[in-house]
Amino acid sequence: MSKKLIIVGGVAGGATAAARARRLDEDARIIVLERSPHIAFANCGLPYHIGGEIPERDTLLVQTVEAMTARFNLDIRTQSEVLSIDRDAKTVRVFEIETQREYDESYDDLLLSPGALPLRPPIPGVDHPAIHTLRNMVDMDRLKHAVDANAESAIVVGGGFIGLEVAENLKRRGLDVTVVERLRQVMPNLDAEVAEPLHQELARRDVRLLLESGVTRFANNAGRVRVELASGETLDADLVVLSVGVQPDTQIARDAGLELNARGAIIVDAHMRTSDPHIYAVGDAVQVADAVLGGATMIPLAGPANRQARTAADNIFGRDSTYRGSLGTSIVRVFERTAATTGASEKTLQRAQVPCRKIYVHRDQHVGYFPGAESMMIKLLFAPDDGRVLGAQIVGGEGVDKRIDVLAVAIQAGMTVADLEHVELAYAPQYGAAKDPINIAGFVASNTLRGDVELVFAEQLNGDAGEEWTLVDVRSAEEFQAGHLPGALHIPLAELRRRWEEIPRDKPIAVYCAVGQRSYYANRILTAKGVASRNLAGGLNTYRLVHPPEPVPEEATRD
Amino acid sequence: MSKKLIIVGGVAGGATAAARARRLDEDARIIVLERSPHIAFANCGLPYHIGGEIPERDTLLVQTVEAMTARFNLDIRTQSEVLSIDRDAKTVRVFEIETQREYDESYDDLLLSPGALPLRPPIPGVDHPAIHTLRNMVDMDRLKHAVDANAESAIVVGGGFIGLEVAENLKRRGLDVTVVERLRQVMPNLDAEVAEPLHQELARRDVRLLLESGVTRFANNAGRVRVELASGETLDADLVVLSVGVQPDTQIARDAGLELNARGAIIVDAHMRTSDPHIYAVGDAVQVADAVLGGATMIPLAGPANRQARTAADNIFGRDSTYRGSLGTSIVRVFERTAATTGASEKTLQRAQVPCRKIYVHRDQHVGYFPGAESMMIKLLFAPDDGRVLGAQIVGGEGVDKRIDVLAVAIQAGMTVADLEHVELAYAPQYGAAKDPINIAGFVASNTLRGDVELVFAEQLNGDAGEEWTLVDVRSAEEFQAGHLPGALHIPLAELRRRWEEIPRDKPIAVYCAVGQRSYYANRILTAKGVASRNLAGGLNTYRLVHPPEPVPEEATRD
Repeated sequence: MSKKLIIVGGVAGGATAAARARRLDEDARIIVLERSPHIAFANCGLPYHIGGEIPERDTLLVQTVEAMTARFNLDIRTQSEVLSIDRDAKTVRVFEIETQREYDESYDDLLLSPGALPLRPPIPGVDHPAIHTLRNMVDMDRLKHAVDANAESAIVVGGGFIGLEVAENLKRRGLDVTVVERLRQVMPNLDAEVAEPLHQELARRDVRLLLESGVTRFANNAGRVRVELASGETLDADLVVLSVGVQPDTQIARDAGLELNARGAIIVDAHMRTSDPHIYAVGDAVQVADAVLGGATMIPLAGPANRQARTAADNIFGRDSTYRGSLGTSIVRVFERTAATTGASEKTLQRAQVPCRKIYVHRDQHVGYFPGAESMMIKLLFAPDDGRVLGAQIVGGEGVDKRIDVLAVAIQAGMTVADLEHVELAYAPQYGAAKDPINIAGFVASNTLRGDVELVFAEQLNGDAGEEWTLVDVRSAEEFQAGHLPGALHIPLAELRRRWEEIPRDKPIAVYCAVGQRSYYANRILTAKGVASRNLAGGLNTYRLVHPPEPVPEEATRD
Repeated sequence: MSKKLIIVGGVAGGATAAARARRLDEDARIIVLERSPHIAFANCGLPYHIGGEIPERDTLLVQTVEAMTARFNLDIRTQSEVLSIDRDAKTVRVFEIETQREYDESYDDLLLSPGALPLRPPIPGVDHPAIHTLRNMVDMDRLKHAVDANAESAIVVGGGFIGLEVAENLKRRGLDVTVVERLRQVMPNLDAEVAEPLHQELARRDVRLLLESGVTRFANNAGRVRVELASGETLDADLVVLSVGVQPDTQIARDAGLELNARGAIIVDAHMRTSDPHIYAVGDAVQVADAVLGGATMIPLAGPANRQARTAADNIFGRDSTYRGSLGTSIVRVFERTAATTGASEKTLQRAQVPCRKIYVHRDQHVGYFPGAESMMIKLLFAPDDGRVLGAQIVGGEGVDKRIDVLAVAIQAGMTVADLEHVELAYAPQYGAAKDPINIAGFVASNTLRGDVELVFAEQLNGDAGEEWTLVDVRSAEEFQAGHLPGALHIPLAELRRRWEEIPRDKPIAVYCAVGQRSYYANRILTAKGVASRNLAGGLNTYRLVHPPEPVPEEATRD
């Protein structure tokens, strides 16, 4: 007697699970119930069709019902909403939107892949028709229609993945765009200094960014939206896109008494099984293990969803398969900047009270003599005892994706910073360097673990650090004259061996250069002279991201 | 009493070792002896200055003697050739080229980083002045001068890294270019089918490629070079570039009685120490451990040279540091194709009689709906028992470098193909897919290890495979009509469930599609029906690289 599997949700996880299930059991009855009119559409591509970078709408429909049905012998029912689960009867109650009919469908096993819904915070006026969210094809069509209808201005509320991608694409369409973010930075999964280059990129592209700006009210202004901020400022725009996060779409799971976490995510084991042994769940709606910290986390990303779906299908059809937890590897392109992260961030490590060390490396993605070299900053977080890599963040241009992937694999493999020193990556002038940025990060991190260098961090040096520290700038005269830390003593590296005695020793000494390399050489010289000194981690480049210049007040708000 | 270190050779390994040595010992006396006028020049950039992609010659001079001297307090002597080593006296005999003076210099420790010399095979006429090699700035200047002097045609002998890079750059300069290669493929470190797309790319770019063509003689033809091939064909060109490999430049090591291998490479231990405890050696002149196969190998690449130099300097200055061996990770760009390898190739595994399995994946570097998707082929080699990754080769366009680096780290970490299934890489539409090509390679490889699918390889199917096999093509009608294997039965995947009984069972069944994915689904259906079948690994795409169409004979030779 072959199994009957019902899958709720036909996008990333659901579609993958259905295909995998069929490969495991040719005879199983597999029913996919999807509320929207589409299955397996390209969620992540939606902003780029609005912006025009993906010109053909229908390329976003990665799989059609017809093709998937034919290939995998599935029973796919779109516009079919599951209203409830009867766990005792092992049935689901289905509402067929087109016919308005309700019916029960029985299952042997049930797989929930409902995804998450855009958060719509209970702000007065949030139901204004010109306030959009962007989660599916219907949302996209609606938002694109508004843009096509000659919208001239937009306010994006929330500076996460979708917010920034939407902002870029609306700008590309010529709209006047303002991003309003409640926190002090965009991309909350990044540490603040790694997000800072994205702020700069938005400014460079003439996207206005308002940080630490909560929205208190939306009002109607002759069909346009007026956004009132906690600061008292008001902004007007033709449309608003709300992208302040998502919440698991788990009402039916809750109603059925499945175990959920405090934020409404379904709790599953490593087999992706819920608290009901016949119900599995995957994707944005579940809580998974944090592969670095070991606790529970929620990672609403497509890659993990797909692998969870494969794991769930395997277990449903009798194969012992384990999901290993998520690193949260993710990447965002904002115009010409790319920022990416994998593993734990410094703030999550601090929150979890996990001791860690950090270093910064600024390095080009390939040798400087080959055209197109662009600098990236790597922030590497590692264990103080054994040097195990705990997390990494990178911001830059080309080549960021490669290095974050290399580090994601390194974390998965339990590698240490010493292992990174030995990594043998492919080098040709177009692609890297004989010492890849990853090797350099390994060297720098190992140097600190071995005690070859003591670091001082930009956040330890405030604006008048010169009062507590003797600051030594070892860059060239040209670099020094173009800007330096207040009160810094200037001794170019090449002169340090004969001038080191000029350095006063009444205060602790912090040596710096542009990125931390020349100052490391200087530290080594001073150590040999018996003079203790610290190296400013990541140099002035990181310093300026930790202490960004205050934004220049604008003459007037633009609207 | 501080140490006196002499370093022979001031390019990649030598320069790195000198800088590292200084950081470890501020008081050591460090002398760098370099035969050429330049230290630390960008070896790998030379072809691109000839072609013009790197317009400024002097950007190739990555370090000047003055800057390195000042920064690291070194005694750098260029145009200083070491003639011999007196191991008992611990001195080297130095020939100062400008003054023609000879002198002895003593050392406590000696580090040899002499590099390798271009092979100049003893072919009659090989000393023709229009026959070039390309290894250093002097060679480059000479070759570029010849090109600038209105050369119209060139013959490149040897289709390795340098040969192909030179061919591309000469073509870019408008020359008529022929590549003559003794073997049946270019890039001998790649398996043949992975090199095949490079053959096609050369043809597409109008570079003539003569494979299996040995040169028997060079002759002078009124200042031009006439190249005579073993086939009897003769070619004429304004210049010839010889790039048939390199040999360790180890005469002084040999004369000094240091242990060398049969090919003249210096034998070192994991500390980069030679058979003399006070002499270390690094770079293209040494033999190192093969990090996959465990035996000895020679890997003339800049990345390993640099890390070996660091290791040697560490050990010279009392730090226990170990070089872990080389994977041979490397990459070449040929016009718009990129080919890369890491770990063992199929042919080296066969030669070493190491059992392995292989799979092929054809996949875009990022989601197909985002503009610019380009297909790459991944060949993955892994252990039949535990699935440990042994090697990988990739050919394609954008994104090849990233995937080879991910696999290089995976090999270094001892990961298995099951681990690749779980790799969590960064996904956004510009950079990858929710199921990255690496995940897919892991799935496909694990499927074969688990016995979910049996493979048949293109080399097992010859032109009349239809006589020994029942070939089933499960692609669409359009694809089938555009070309298929002779004698193949056509049943589109979507029709297989109702038509599978049409497949004759008198012969073994091989199912194929374009890349091996749809045919895998077909295998699963047939297995469920109780019909054994095999999947053509990598589909028709790989088949066509294993069995490339015969080149169309040319009407006449071009010269």
